[in-house]
Amino acid sequence: MARVVRVAHLALVHEDMDVALRFWRDGLGIAVARVADVPQEGVRVAFLPVGDDEIEIVVPQRLDTGVARFLAKRGPGMHHVCLEVDDLDAMLARLRGQGVELINETPRVSPDGRRYAFIHPRSAGGVLVELYEARADTTA
Amino acid sequence: MARVVRVAHLALVHEDMDVALRFWRDGLGIAVARVADVPQEGVRVAFLPVGDDEIEIVVPQRLDTGVARFLAKRGPGMHHVCLEVDDLDAMLARLRGQGVELINETPRVSPDGRRYAFIHPRSAGGVLVELYEARADTTA
Repeated sequence: MARVVRVAHLALVHEDMDVALRFWRDGLGIAVARVADVPQEGVRVAFLPVGDDEIEIVVPQRLDTGVARFLAKRGPGMHHVCLEVDDLDAMLARLRGQGVELINETPRVSPDGRRYAFIHPRSAGGVLVELYEARADTTA
Repeated sequence: MARVVRVAHLALVHEDMDVALRFWRDGLGIAVARVADVPQEGVRVAFLPVGDDEIEIVVPQRLDTGVARFLAKRGPGMHHVCLEVDDLDAMLARLRGQGVELINETPRVSPDGRRYAFIHPRSAGGVLVELYEARADTTA
């Protein structure tokens, strides 16, 4: 049976990367592994590994993105939690069978080759949940 | 230097435990380790371990609690993230020195002996952050 393996990352949204890093990096002392621009999604992302997880700070660079609208509506804060699953297709099939509303009915593929899908917060207790699958080359 | 060791748990707030468990337990298939009433805080909490972390579903049982007010204002969703630190006093001193607003100026102690303190979301990019310290008997 498909199962959740771990919490992969916790994504936070903020309007200003420097201000966000002042707390997460300088205050808490969590090292930034890298900062990347993702033009196709209109965001800049900082990755801060913590133990087995990662905190991701997402800063919209354009107004016409979902994350920019989220920020405008709710202000800075937690955006989504990403759970790693061992079998994404089987997990999505089970959720669909239980009437869970999926944002991505079929998995999408990230530039680095990971398959992922988002679940609608309406079906997930108000939480935006991303599921993603470990790459075959890391689980073989 | 005091440092963050791991993400200890992610707390979600919901108005109905059965509805919340229908997604997190039955949908995602994450086993519930235990459910506990915490009368002194006016909440019922379900603990769902995932890898090295834990998802906690918090359901207010009284209206006169901070978490009940949070739920009334923002609806169900993510409530706070808890980070484990190796030296809570040193971490709080550093944060205080950087002008970070703490909800608990001095650590509180949970019924099971853990020392913890909350940071105000105003100073933490809109995220309610709990810091807690591993118990001495688990780090010695």
